Parts: sequence; structure tokens; C-alpha cells
Amino acid sequence: MNRTERIQAVLQTLVTSSPDVEGAALVTMDGLPLASALPGGTDEDRVSAMGAAALSMGARTVAELKRGSLEQVYVKGSGGYVILMQAGTETVLETISNSDARLGLLLYEMKLAAKELAGLI
Amino acid sequence: MNRTERIQAVLQTLVTSSPDVEGAALVTMDGLPLASALPGGTDEDRVSAMGAAALSMGARTVAELKRGSLEQVYVKGSGGYVILMQAGTETVLETISNSDARLGLLLYEMKLAAKELAGLI
Repeated sequence: MNRTERIQAVLQTLVTSSPDVEGAALVTMDGLPLASALPGGTDEDRVSAMGAAALSMGARTVAELKRGSLEQVYVKGSGGYVILMQAGTETVLETISNSDARLGLLLYEMKLAAKELAGLI
Repeated sequence: MNRTERIQAVLQTLVTSSPDVEGAALVTMDGLPLASALPGGTDEDRVSAMGAAALSMGARTVAELKRGSLEQVYVKGSGGYVILMQAGTETVLETISNSDARLGLLLYEMKLAAKELAGLI
């Protein structure tokens, strides 16, 4: 497998780790998609752009409120979660799940995937 | 106790619930502080404004990525957490903790406080 295929495989593994995980994407800090495993009909560009916007807000929040360097942002809606986690220095792993997802397990699976992705990029 | 004092008491109880919780504030959706229990030297206006900015980004994220209505936003830095949770329809409970905080416990304590605050405002 080449690098792109290996990144894709890590994202696919994350999505299939639980039926509650609906999609995952690896995006650059400025909101460009690098790879994704998203359900049909989901706009990859929109997912990436929202991820970057959330990340930028998160970075400002931790800076202003003196919480060190940004590690994670999560947004919970009545219909599910959007979670962002640093994966390497320049890229971010973004996961979308439904509201049945177990947060602890999901964060754990994301950490494993983020570590693997950081080694690939 | 009047209403302001009761709100203040709920925030104070949340802050003293764990040594890892450093401060709590009740803010309006547009970033104005209603009441707070913050450590000395912390700018209440800055905390409130950052809370509203994070909330606004969270609302946009759940809308764009079809996750229902916004319930929580959390931002994790290497030095701790900033967590926002709806408390009533027009106000938000914001908590700042250090990185030793147990997230599950903190979210539970915040839910109790948010419910109590919703009944006061």
C-alpha cells in the first residue's frame, strides 16, 4: 500500500470500529481534506472546513484562558458528536458519530488512530 | 438569598466540588457575564466572550454536520479543559479546570449545576 492508501485504511478502521462512528477525515490545519471515510452524501469539503473552524476557535480558547496547547475539541449535539484531535503537527483527525457513541471508547480509538496517522504524514 | 446570590452559590458549589475545577461562570449566549466564581486575576469578560465564541462555533458545527441542537462544547489543552453546557434556553454554564480533572465526573457535576441554574433564571 502507498501512503495515501495506508491513511485511508486507518480512517476506515476507525469508522468500522463501532457502528456509532459515521465518518472520519484527516484534514490540514487550514481546512483542506487529505483523506476521508465519510458516509455517502457527506460533503468532504464542508467537513474539513468546519473542522478547521472548530480547531481555530479551540486554539484561541486555550490561549486566551491559559490552558496550554490545544489537544482536542469536541462538540456534542442532540444528534451526535463531532470530535477533533491533533494527529501530527500539521494535521487533524476529525470524527463524526451518532449520539449513541460511548465517548470514552471513541476518544480512545481516535487516540490510537491519531498516533498511527502521525507516523504516516 | 436573592436570585443572584443563589446563582452565585451554585457556581461556588461547582468550583469547590473538586480541587481541579478552577472556575465557573454563567454567561449569556452573546458573551455577557451573569455571574461567576473565578480565581483571582481571571478576567470575567474574557472568559464570557471566549465562551460565547466557542458556543457560536459549536452551534455552526452541529448545524452544518447535522448533529441536532447544540448541547456541549469542550476544548482540551495540555493545561486543562474549558467546557460549555447549555443552562436554560438563553444562558450557558462555562467551567475551567486543570488537566487533572476527571472528565466524566466534571460533566456530571456540570449537568447537576446546569439543571439547578436553569431553574433559577
